[in-house]
Amino acid sequence: MAETSSKGEYVVGVDLGGTKILAGVFKNSLECIGSSKLSTKSQRGVDAVVERIARCVQDAVDEADLNLKHVAGIGIGAPGAVDFAEGRVIFAPNMEGWKDVPLKKDLEKQLGVPVFVENDGNICALGVHVVELKAKPKSLIGIFVGTGIGGGLIINGDLYSGFNHTAGEIGHMVLDINGPKCGCGNKGCFEALASRTAIFQQIKAGVKDGEKTMLTEMLGDDLADLRSGDLRKAIRRGDKFVDKVIEGAAEYIGIGIANLVNILSPEVVVLGGGVIEALADEMMSVIVETAQDYAMPGTMKGVEIIASKLGDNAGITGGAVLARRETK
Amino acid sequence: MAETSSKGEYVVGVDLGGTKILAGVFKNSLECIGSSKLSTKSQRGVDAVVERIARCVQDAVDEADLNLKHVAGIGIGAPGAVDFAEGRVIFAPNMEGWKDVPLKKDLEKQLGVPVFVENDGNICALGVHVVELKAKPKSLIGIFVGTGIGGGLIINGDLYSGFNHTAGEIGHMVLDINGPKCGCGNKGCFEALASRTAIFQQIKAGVKDGEKTMLTEMLGDDLADLRSGDLRKAIRRGDKFVDKVIEGAAEYIGIGIANLVNILSPEVVVLGGGVIEALADEMMSVIVETAQDYAMPGTMKGVEIIASKLGDNAGITGGAVLARRETK
Repeated sequence: MAETSSKGEYVVGVDLGGTKILAGVFKNSLECIGSSKLSTKSQRGVDAVVERIARCVQDAVDEADLNLKHVAGIGIGAPGAVDFAEGRVIFAPNMEGWKDVPLKKDLEKQLGVPVFVENDGNICALGVHVVELKAKPKSLIGIFVGTGIGGGLIINGDLYSGFNHTAGEIGHMVLDINGPKCGCGNKGCFEALASRTAIFQQIKAGVKDGEKTMLTEMLGDDLADLRSGDLRKAIRRGDKFVDKVIEGAAEYIGIGIANLVNILSPEVVVLGGGVIEALADEMMSVIVETAQDYAMPGTMKGVEIIASKLGDNAGITGGAVLARRETK
Repeated sequence: MAETSSKGEYVVGVDLGGTKILAGVFKNSLECIGSSKLSTKSQRGVDAVVERIARCVQDAVDEADLNLKHVAGIGIGAPGAVDFAEGRVIFAPNMEGWKDVPLKKDLEKQLGVPVFVENDGNICALGVHVVELKAKPKSLIGIFVGTGIGGGLIINGDLYSGFNHTAGEIGHMVLDINGPKCGCGNKGCFEALASRTAIFQQIKAGVKDGEKTMLTEMLGDDLADLRSGDLRKAIRRGDKFVDKVIEGAAEYIGIGIANLVNILSPEVVVLGGGVIEALADEMMSVIVETAQDYAMPGTMKGVEIIASKLGDNAGITGGAVLARRETK
């Protein structure tokens, strides 16, 4: 295990997602001074992805006109269950072959800088809580909708990870026991109903079934390069089919929030991730309405449901917060 | 609001359920020295139930050869969302007309003793944590299966009730969005699938549809006086239909636990309530197996799933713990 270093003044936050890797270099004040982005290419296998993470970190450091000697630590959010003490990814359902990966050890060997691995939802919630929310709510649930759905909990003012350090795995909360199959093997998980993966699958299935949508004019019949932003464009041009799919996903997110509010009674619910960043204007009112509708009377009083302004940077920001905390 | 009193040496715990009211008188050492039980009769209206609670408390105190002057405080668990500071029941979906009931105020007027009202799931979890579990796990989820399904959370070693003091409302976690209607108005809530109410409904519907069961021989075709204990008897005599219904409920409880473990990563999950007390031998292995099956890899490591030995006394015990804490 690498020792805490006081050499570097900067920290790096990394957001490892099923689709892309983001890295950002941050000053101690948590101002971002350089970032980079690479596709994940998880189909190339675990080693290739670890190498790409290292490359993405180096690119970001170079972008900030620094080198790795200036970096005190790297905080990474990984999309799955994580053993924080050992820095191992136990299981990442949206990444091919990611079972029991010693990410901390492998990256420290490649980069020579202390690495700290957390669940991506935890990292994003930490970033939003520390950097974005000035009121510092005592309790917060972060819900991050991207390739999958990650979550993170702030309880009593601090990140809560529980007995096995796996708290916040909200994406695999079963909402519809007979629903569509999820990457984890179960059916009807939250992320099998409302993640970008689920939304894209519904749209592609609809097109196959003959639904009319502008997306095929924009992207061709196979919708190969579909992105969340395309959905926003289609809805704004009046695409009823896409609108219906997105409304359905927003309803599921609202029901997921109601479940979590019933269970945890948080002060704030923060939504983030690529889907929310692209479609907040289209989704937020349905999400809030559905959550209020489904939650038990009394549980929603004064609870804020908001979209994070950090957008896609929540992960790298949280990673930087973690690295700063662990190397202090 | 009544002031904390130091007159009495004893505390009373009350478990207000949809079917029955239990009251127990406890020494400061939390030993129970007298108890009583009344049916709730919620169909008679809120005032009648409040009077019955007062009567049940008086009966228990009399049973212990004491009078109300010996009682320092009364802790009550109510089956719904509760405003703890004001001692109001905000909403109890399994009790007729229980919306915004000032239970603390009404009972203090009738009994002249300080009253503290908590959610019943919270109370039961508190009782199990303080009295039953010697290891004092830092985090615990209590799941209490009776007329409805109540829950209670211990986080960082203490009862956790969150921003609106409503945390632990696990009974209204939606598990099957297209499932049966719940008392709260939603569909497919945990308690609409696995509570005693749900189990009895499934059995009665099955009998109507021509399913063969010993229960009709035991109780007549209308199954009017059906109790959880009858289900145990039928299963032990080889009743396949009842066995199937109970196995289904146990599976839902397992899925509910998996959701909660994914979200909260607790050290211990404790099951209690009348259904578990009557059917633990029949249900626990299916519950544990299903929970392990559905929870994300890594989240269940070392997690204990156990049936509380306090059984039906978890509520009155927790009520006593609360009253002792609040009148100290």
